[in-house]
Amino acid sequence: MIDVAAANRDAVERMIGAHPRLVGIRPAREAIPFLADRRRLLHAGPPIEWARASGPLRGAIVGALLFEEWAASAEEAEALASGGDVELAPCHHHGAVGPMAGVVSPSMALYVVEDATHGGRAFSNLNEGYGKVLRYGAYAPDVLERLRWINGPFAALVGAALAAGEPLDLRALVAEALHMGDEGHNRNKAGSLLFTRLLAPRLAGTADDRLEAARALAFLGDNALSVLNPVMAACKAMADAAHGVEGSTLVTAMARNGTDFGIRVSGLGEQWFTAAALVPDGLYFPGFSAADANPDIGDSTITETAGIGGFAMAAAPAIVSFVGGEPADASRATLEMYEITVAEHRHFTIPALGFRGTPTGIDLQKVVELGLTPRINTGIAHREPGIGQVGAGLVRPPAEIFEAALVAWAERYLEEEGGGDPP
Amino acid sequence: MIDVAAANRDAVERMIGAHPRLVGIRPAREAIPFLADRRRLLHAGPPIEWARASGPLRGAIVGALLFEEWAASAEEAEALASGGDVELAPCHHHGAVGPMAGVVSPSMALYVVEDATHGGRAFSNLNEGYGKVLRYGAYAPDVLERLRWINGPFAALVGAALAAGEPLDLRALVAEALHMGDEGHNRNKAGSLLFTRLLAPRLAGTADDRLEAARALAFLGDNALSVLNPVMAACKAMADAAHGVEGSTLVTAMARNGTDFGIRVSGLGEQWFTAAALVPDGLYFPGFSAADANPDIGDSTITETAGIGGFAMAAAPAIVSFVGGEPADASRATLEMYEITVAEHRHFTIPALGFRGTPTGIDLQKVVELGLTPRINTGIAHREPGIGQVGAGLVRPPAEIFEAALVAWAERYLEEEGGGDPP
Repeated sequence: MIDVAAANRDAVERMIGAHPRLVGIRPAREAIPFLADRRRLLHAGPPIEWARASGPLRGAIVGALLFEEWAASAEEAEALASGGDVELAPCHHHGAVGPMAGVVSPSMALYVVEDATHGGRAFSNLNEGYGKVLRYGAYAPDVLERLRWINGPFAALVGAALAAGEPLDLRALVAEALHMGDEGHNRNKAGSLLFTRLLAPRLAGTADDRLEAARALAFLGDNALSVLNPVMAACKAMADAAHGVEGSTLVTAMARNGTDFGIRVSGLGEQWFTAAALVPDGLYFPGFSAADANPDIGDSTITETAGIGGFAMAAAPAIVSFVGGEPADASRATLEMYEITVAEHRHFTIPALGFRGTPTGIDLQKVVELGLTPRINTGIAHREPGIGQVGAGLVRPPAEIFEAALVAWAERYLEEEGGGDPP
Repeated sequence: MIDVAAANRDAVERMIGAHPRLVGIRPAREAIPFLADRRRLLHAGPPIEWARASGPLRGAIVGALLFEEWAASAEEAEALASGGDVELAPCHHHGAVGPMAGVVSPSMALYVVEDATHGGRAFSNLNEGYGKVLRYGAYAPDVLERLRWINGPFAALVGAALAAGEPLDLRALVAEALHMGDEGHNRNKAGSLLFTRLLAPRLAGTADDRLEAARALAFLGDNALSVLNPVMAACKAMADAAHGVEGSTLVTAMARNGTDFGIRVSGLGEQWFTAAALVPDGLYFPGFSAADANPDIGDSTITETAGIGGFAMAAAPAIVSFVGGEPADASRATLEMYEITVAEHRHFTIPALGFRGTPTGIDLQKVVELGLTPRINTGIAHREPGIGQVGAGLVRPPAEIFEAALVAWAERYLEEEGGGDPP
């Protein structure tokens, strides 16, 4: 008889015990073998082809092809991508995560995160800030110009700063940010300040040109999402540490490509369980409404997978001004997530709940049994390519993917015992 | 008949409407005419002479005399000070505030804060960080060496950074920090990161020596109290804006010199109302206990006077790990302070209380009527000179100073109407 509870305890202990540290920055083509060849791109969420790709993902693919100079115009880029001349693969298949469209091309720079406990490694691209940005499907000339600066001079300065000292302890950074009003997904104000503070002396001390150092520090400090991408890579390292535990029903990935929402489960290998992604419920920027919203998109749900983001809402009462609701809703969100998780985090605690650990490790069984899906904080992209962010809000995954995963779990683990109902 | 309520509304509106901005750094001897002459020092709290000065204030005076090289040894410094050769005056008498001992000598650097609404000006010294520091009465050679670096090269770098751009909006900084788990007195982690983030690009962009820039940024970023002193000067500017309103019973200064606790009142001019300071109730560093504690000391109660610090505890549930108590106590502290204040702050709000404004403007009448004194967060100094901080905790002012002030108010304002009981 398979001991699911023991398997989940093992898996969640690996997740909580992981110790992700930011060790440096590398070009994507060097960090990820798949990207060493031309005309390959990574994207957020489960696998998808151009024909089914949403507007913002298409926009980001077009932008990446222009950024790489594989196409000279948006029309040329679309023709290339729709003609099957660009090979797409999920970030998650290559140890990476990217917010929103999550498109990574070979010339982009990646943060490299290492799990000091288990030796795993995870990657993320660099955050572009708010507004019209590639990850929301924008690809105007100014978007590409900013991307070139970020992945060129800026990445070189931050990379040199990281190389100038010890790896940055991202677990400690997240723990501290949760005591400063962040939840680590939509709100990363404090984490980004902590990140800027850790990098500032090193960057100022290693840069050859003080004006370039000043520009890089202003960009880091003014972008309240600077640290989102390294935090996502840290969460990916934590979730990956929990993956592959025989018999475990722990969810180790939740990700969306703008069309489908997919999950992976610790004991079920590389298989994705997918269904149509839903449209978030949230607050819209002036001039936009739910009619403009693309369905849920991005790998950033790796934060909720690892016990922060929507699961740590109680740490971030101020977030309701961004995603909607009342401060009391924030506490309720966290309390609800204890129902579907198997542990309280040792390192990530919430002062307002008497320093209780965040709800960590989503158990497929509990989600299905209670009919209660995870709560996710998210940005909202415009459904057309080329536009960008239109709001932020809350969303849940489609319930059927948890049911399908539980059936698959039962087929795999209960078969040798004569099959039967899921536990 | 004097309209006290109208006078208090006027005074508190001046306090809330004040707009303190950090404009630069100047040597104390230039900023404050009193310090242009030799052998004069400022100190925290109401007036006091050497004979009645507490251990930590004596230690800081000794340290300042050594720092200025007016004495060559601690013995010589004590002889000088006890012989009456050093003239002492409260910081508050010269538009300044200083945490703990609050000693300011002519060669020290001062932050200069201007109130953009009313044109007032306030000063504070530079924060030295934690541990063995002058403001807690320590004066060992390493304390003096750090003081020389802070008031020399560090002040020059920060001063140049401040001169390189617009004044820093301290009201906006405090407002943001209150949404990030600070209360602005004992907990200034977020505010110090915001301060570091605002200064970093300017400092990196103006420093001639990148290693000196790196050292200064590390000192600013690693010191979670970096911003305490500018915030205190901002609170002084806000409180001073409310001072001098005819008939007002609003408290516009609360300050302690380690021996006496003193308050000033908007409608009662320059008069101090004082009584013996109490010993805080708090958490002690390993190896220390309440037996080591000096009575309450410092000008930092200007934060509570202006509606933050202990009054904004509900914004900072994590602070209980530093000052003692449970997170729920933090909320209760703020709720209690609404009882003795006349307004809720427009700019300083608390997410966990549904973005309610902080309780602002202590009304003498309410304190006396309810028998409820202000709650103050504070550091705790060792009672002997030369040692330093031994803990942090909570304290209240002696109740009798509010009663004495209310009697003085009645004598002044009710006399022409035939005297009578206070309102």
